[in-house]
Formats: sequence, structure tokens, C-alpha cells
Amino acid sequence: MNALESFFSSNKERIFEEWKALLRIQSISTEPAFANHCREGAQWVSKHLAGLGFNSEIIETSGHPVVFAQRRCAKADAPTLLFYGHYDVQPVDPLDLWHTEPFSPVEKDGRMYARGAQDNKGQLFYFLKAVEATKDSCGVNIKVLIEGEEEIGSKRLMELLPSLKSKLSADVLLVCDTGTVDEKVGAITVGLRGIGHFEVKLVGPNKDLHSGVHGGVVRNPAIELCRLVSKLHDENGKIAVPGYFDGALPITEEERRYSGGFNFPPELYRQKVGVLPEGGEKGVPMMERRGLHPTIEINGMYSGYLGEGSKTIIPSFAVCKISCRLVAGQPAETAIGKVVDFLRANTPKEMKLDVSPITATGGALKVPLHGRYIEAATDSLKAVMGSDPIYLWEGASIPLISELSNCSGSTPVLVGFGLEEDNIHAPNESFSLEQFYRGFLFCGNFLSAVGNEKTV
Amino acid sequence: MNALESFFSSNKERIFEEWKALLRIQSISTEPAFANHCREGAQWVSKHLAGLGFNSEIIETSGHPVVFAQRRCAKADAPTLLFYGHYDVQPVDPLDLWHTEPFSPVEKDGRMYARGAQDNKGQLFYFLKAVEATKDSCGVNIKVLIEGEEEIGSKRLMELLPSLKSKLSADVLLVCDTGTVDEKVGAITVGLRGIGHFEVKLVGPNKDLHSGVHGGVVRNPAIELCRLVSKLHDENGKIAVPGYFDGALPITEEERRYSGGFNFPPELYRQKVGVLPEGGEKGVPMMERRGLHPTIEINGMYSGYLGEGSKTIIPSFAVCKISCRLVAGQPAETAIGKVVDFLRANTPKEMKLDVSPITATGGALKVPLHGRYIEAATDSLKAVMGSDPIYLWEGASIPLISELSNCSGSTPVLVGFGLEEDNIHAPNESFSLEQFYRGFLFCGNFLSAVGNEKTV
Repeated sequence: MNALESFFSSNKERIFEEWKALLRIQSISTEPAFANHCREGAQWVSKHLAGLGFNSEIIETSGHPVVFAQRRCAKADAPTLLFYGHYDVQPVDPLDLWHTEPFSPVEKDGRMYARGAQDNKGQLFYFLKAVEATKDSCGVNIKVLIEGEEEIGSKRLMELLPSLKSKLSADVLLVCDTGTVDEKVGAITVGLRGIGHFEVKLVGPNKDLHSGVHGGVVRNPAIELCRLVSKLHDENGKIAVPGYFDGALPITEEERRYSGGFNFPPELYRQKVGVLPEGGEKGVPMMERRGLHPTIEINGMYSGYLGEGSKTIIPSFAVCKISCRLVAGQPAETAIGKVVDFLRANTPKEMKLDVSPITATGGALKVPLHGRYIEAATDSLKAVMGSDPIYLWEGASIPLISELSNCSGSTPVLVGFGLEEDNIHAPNESFSLEQFYRGFLFCGNFLSAVGNEKTV
Repeated sequence: MNALESFFSSNKERIFEEWKALLRIQSISTEPAFANHCREGAQWVSKHLAGLGFNSEIIETSGHPVVFAQRRCAKADAPTLLFYGHYDVQPVDPLDLWHTEPFSPVEKDGRMYARGAQDNKGQLFYFLKAVEATKDSCGVNIKVLIEGEEEIGSKRLMELLPSLKSKLSADVLLVCDTGTVDEKVGAITVGLRGIGHFEVKLVGPNKDLHSGVHGGVVRNPAIELCRLVSKLHDENGKIAVPGYFDGALPITEEERRYSGGFNFPPELYRQKVGVLPEGGEKGVPMMERRGLHPTIEINGMYSGYLGEGSKTIIPSFAVCKISCRLVAGQPAETAIGKVVDFLRANTPKEMKLDVSPITATGGALKVPLHGRYIEAATDSLKAVMGSDPIYLWEGASIPLISELSNCSGSTPVLVGFGLEEDNIHAPNESFSLEQFYRGFLFCGNFLSAVGNEKTV
């Protein structure tokens, strides 16, 4: 710990200058005009890794390049850590809401302001600096995978994974791309939900009909679609689709206890979102509904006439976009298939349900609460923060991480220092210098803990 | 009857030529470029009425003019008949689907082809010819009101009505703007449903939310709107809104029997519309559901993301356009207000229901099944068709007719000779010459019956 602290204090100025150099690169992945800047980002990262003693290469894809680098340590039988991050960033619109230039990083009031300051250039860079600080002592083989398309779905890297299997093989997968709930609290993300989606079209009459001539005679597809999707949940908000939960791992007592370790204050939620967090299954704590329950949501819905005034028709059809979030153990295709089966089984007579193919992007990620690496992460975080970390089950999905963990055969450890106030994806993104430092300390400790096969 | 027949056969050629002259006028009311043609239509009708001995005037409106004409008969205490029709027609697009020019009327295979051949120039013109044929003998004071904005909602005439009250006062209101179900069957329309509509917006979170981060935490407005509108009907398709039926006149045994006098074959319905007529309340005959039951329909619905692929959001809001068809006795504003109350009462906690003002265009029209004029119409139709007429309760709404009946203090009689095959509002509109002749005979008989205070 002292060695890390003194490294940081003697190199702080240089570290921040290097970080700023990375932040100046306009590596917006979604805008084709910025492709060269993305390449510049990959080259910068690759060169920086080479400077840290890595064998670094740039892997071409049909999109933005991926950086892969590895460094073996002297120790025989040392464990291998794979680090995943991304050099690409979100677009900067609306530009007029920024107080400083998004690609001209500025230190102000203990924060670094720039697009990517946190997500993910800040968080990947504190890891690189921890690697530098522990260079000769960490006793870990390190592999680094930094891609340039995370903000646009990681599709190309996902496709590449099978061909990179032996290159990526590792014992532990560290990802610093998440956040915590308070700067005083360390957090380990131990769950991510899976996701899949599809679209249905309920078709009735062969054209829009006059609602006077045909009203009461023919079934109305808009009403029937409402009745149909209303059956997906029972009166208590619990999903009512038979078989949907098949395979879902039961929530353990420990998960229940740990997930209750943090509770978002309902009134604060209302302040931010406009309503109290009272969705999902009645009587279940919020954090459990968020990370440990699957969902079925309508993301979009359309039928009939939407213009000014009225057009008194019975619409010919009604459509609905549905997405499902899945928990550990739920096989994505199968579970979502049950939803489709249920909708088909309940389709009214004389109507046709057209269903799009299911897109099941990935299953849920479940990190065991016990084991060498999660314990190393817990102890390392505790050493930095001075208190026990919390465990977070995220409701969102990062399909790449499950895939990467499977492909590399490694145990995932997700620790990040982001906070709500960082405004990632929004104007005036910034990252607290204090959180950057905590991230650096955590990574340094964690590398040592993994290398020494004991916690700090 | 013989006098009518011989008048027609001796004047047939002239009658058709005059009718064609009217059909040549391009009186499309919805297209501003055709305003002068609408005026030409009004002038033609007014001049024609003057030629039949009427005092005819053109009443200006802020839109297309209205023709009003009256002719007193010699008999003291003669009853007064008010005839309502319209000289305006629907647009002609798509023009390339017409086999002949829409405003160059052509007689072919016993039919007259032209825009307006039936709706309403054909049906108003056989009335005018019946007036001509019975000129000296009918014993009825006749008032004729022909407007130029029926196809665009009759809003201006509706506004004028209060100022025309004394002018329009009459004993019986004859409208020949409806149809029948088969050329062998005469039909009297004895019911039209009322109509009103409104729009609701169910608002949840203050912006679209990430369906991973917030799914299971917050209620989804699209799902909740579906659940909400699903409550409008019970499992048997019966409207479940408390108080909605308040005031609705019960269906009498006679209405039930008469409305069952014609049944649209379900398989034929499916051929035309694509589905069997199995909407509305389970177990109720089709024609009763169509004309004697009120409805609540969704005409349009929207929420969230509708583009390509998926956007996994919980939408901030969901909207829905709702219209109601009303039966006799249901006060429009009040009944529709009950639907709004019900939706408000069932709005989920933490959500807001924005409701637009209710537009209640008009209540239902109910024509008593007994009384002098309906009996005169029944007997006149029977004399023409050789069999008893059927009684139709239409599901659609013509708000003007109730208003006109109320304002003029007259009993409405709705008899028309249109058929599905006439393609009104569509390309290749036409009217059977045989049906035109039947309309002429019916009107002649009816005028005599009204004038003689006994049926033919």
C-alpha cells in the first residue's frame, strides 16, 4: 500500500498528463467521420502498453481496431489476469451544454472534465498506472484487451472471440467499467442480467374498418393486443408466463442479504425519475427486483391513427416491441420462447400473431460470492475504502462480459469507481481525481493479492 | 302507382339526361380548388327546384352554400315533409382505378357510373323526380334542404340549424342517403348510433428510462395503459364501465325481433373483412351488437420506440385514442364521462392520466317503430318491393340527422336504395338504374301516402 501511495504522489503530474493525452483523442466510435481518431486511440493505448513492457498488437476488425497486449512475469505458475476495457467514447452532442471543450481535458475542483474522463478512459488508465506501479513485484501474468466499439455494442469483438480463445485464456477477468453508489463505499458488481427482444404484430381485419359500421361486430386488434400483453403479469406484478422461470437459479439467502446491503432511498429515486420505484413484483425489495428478478417490458407500441383529432377506425393491426431481462440460469432463447408461446396460446380466435425472430443477445452474468478472486477483490477494496464493500446486482446487461468470461475460462471481477455525478454519456462528463486514485490503489492491491495468492 | 310508372317510362330519357347533368358537376367538398364547382352544384339544384315550382334560395355559409326550397300545396292543413340531401361528393383518387371518367357519367349494364351516381346525387334526384311526377296530386307541403358539406362533416349546417328553425319546421323528415342489404329487400333505417371521442396519455417516469437499470423497479406506462384499457370490457366482451349504460333505453322484444330480420352471413363477412364477426358481447346476435349496443373502441395507440430493431427503454408515457358509439337514451357527454372517470379511478399509483376534452358529436337516433310516417314508409316500400321491408339499426353515426329532426320537430324516415356494390367513396361508383327506379317509386308512393293521410 505504501509503495502504491508513494508511486502515485511522485508521479501524479505525469500520470495526469498522460491521462489527458488519452482524453484528447476524439475516439467516438459511432460516427464514421471519427474512424481515424479511433485508430489513433488504439495506437496510443498499444504504444503505452509497449512502454510498460507488454507485447502489444493491434487486431484489425471490420470496424475499429482492438488492442491486445500481454506481459509474463518471472514467477513460474503465476496466475493470469485478463483486463478488459474500451478506448471508444460516446458522441458529445449537445455540444452547447458543455462548459469546457469535451476533448480538451480540464482539471477543476478535484475532477477531470472531458468526454471519456470516466467511461472508460479514466477507469482503464488507473489500471494501467497500477500495472506500472507494481511492475516488478506483482507476480501476475497480465493480458490486456481494449476494444473500440463498446459504445456501439461490441458486436465485432463478440464475433472475434472464438478465434482469440487461446490468446485470452486467463484465471481472472478484471473489468473496471462499473460504478458504486457513494464515494465512501466500494462496490463489486456480481450480477448482470441477460437480454433478448422480439416484436409482435396482432392482425385482425384485412384493412382499417369504420368503427361505426363494424364496432361491436369485429374484434379490435388494439384492444386485443392490450388484453393479450396484460396477461404477461399477474395482479401483483409477477410474471405469469408458464415456464419463463425454468432454470432460473433460486435467489440464495446470502444474495438476498447482500443485495439488501444498499437501498436506494425511494424519495431520491422519485426526485430523479419522477415516480416512486414501485414497479415489478409487489412486496419484493427494490434492489432484488432490479438485479435478481427477470422482467418482460414493452419498449414500443403502435396501432391505428395517431394524427390530430379523431379517425374513428378499428385498426387492422397492432404492434408491440417486447424485451426481456433474464437472470442467471435462464436460457435466453428458451425463456423468451416461452413468452412467445404464451402470447400465441392466448391470441384471440380469428386473429393472427406475427412474431419476429427472437434476438437473444446474451444470458445473465452471475459472479459467485465466494472464491479466491472475489475474496481478493473484497479485501483489496476494504483496504482502500476502510470498510466492507457492497455487492451489486445490476439490472442492465453487458453481454460481452459473460462471453469473455466463458471464452477465456476466467472468473469475472467487476469493480468500478464511477458515480452518478460523473455524467457519463452526457455533457460535462468528469471523473473525481479521488475516485481515480482509489481505483489505482484498488487495482494495485488486487494485482498483488492475485499474484501473492493472498490478500493484502 | 300506375301514374308513377307511366310518368317514368314517358320521361326516362330526359330524367337520365338531367341526372347526368348533375353528375357532371365536380362538387368535391373537401378540396378547396373545387369550391366553384360546389357553388355550381348548389345553383343547379336550386334552379332545378325552381323549375319544379319551388321557392328556392341559396343560403351562404362560411363554406359551401346550402340550398333551401319550399312549395306549398293547395290543400289546407296539408302535412309538411322536409327532405334532406347533399350535392357534394367524395374526392376521386385514385383516379387510375376508374374505368371511366368520374365526372363523365356513363350508362352501362343497367348502371350509371360516376362519382356521386348514388351518394347522394342519385338518391336525391329520384326524390326530385318523384316530386315532379306527383306535382299536382300529392297533397303535401314540401321543403327541401340540400347541403354541400355532408362529406366533410356538416359542421357549418349544424351551426346554422338554430337560425333556420322556423324555416325547417315540418312533420316528417325524409332522408334517402342510406342503403339496403339486397336489391330484393327494402330497408328502413330506424337507428343510428351516437358518437364521441377523446384521448388519454398515461405518464410515468419523467423521461424514457433504460429498461435494464429501471426494469422491475419502475412501472412501465405502456404495460399499464394496456392493463388499464383491458378493464373497459369484461371477459365476455361486455363493457365493464360502471354507469356507462345509464339512461340507455332497453332493447324491446320488438327491436330484438326486427333487428334479427336480417343476418349477414358470417362467412360472407369473413370474405369481405378477413375475420368472422365475433367481436362485441358474447352470445348476442351480430345485428344487435352492431346497431343496438354501444361500444368503446381504441382507434389509435402509441408508446416508446417504433424504429428498426430494438431500443430497450421503459417509455415515459403511452397514449390512446378512444371513441364511443352510443345508443338511444345514453347522454353522450355523461356516458363518455363515465369512461374517463373509470380510467382515472383505475390509473396506477405514481402515474398521471392526462385526458383531452371529450368531443361528443351527437347522441343516437332512434326512430319509433310505430306511428303514421314509419307505417307510411313501410307500406310504400312494400308496394314497390312486393315484400315486407326490413328494419336496420346502423352502427354508424350521422349526427346531423338527429339534430335536424329535433330542430324541425319532424319524425325521421330513412329509406335508401344503396347497395355494397355501388362503391360509394371508392373508384367506379355507380348506381343501379333499377334501384334508382325503385327509389323514385318509393318516394312517389310515400308522398302520396303522407298527403292522403292513408297508405297506398
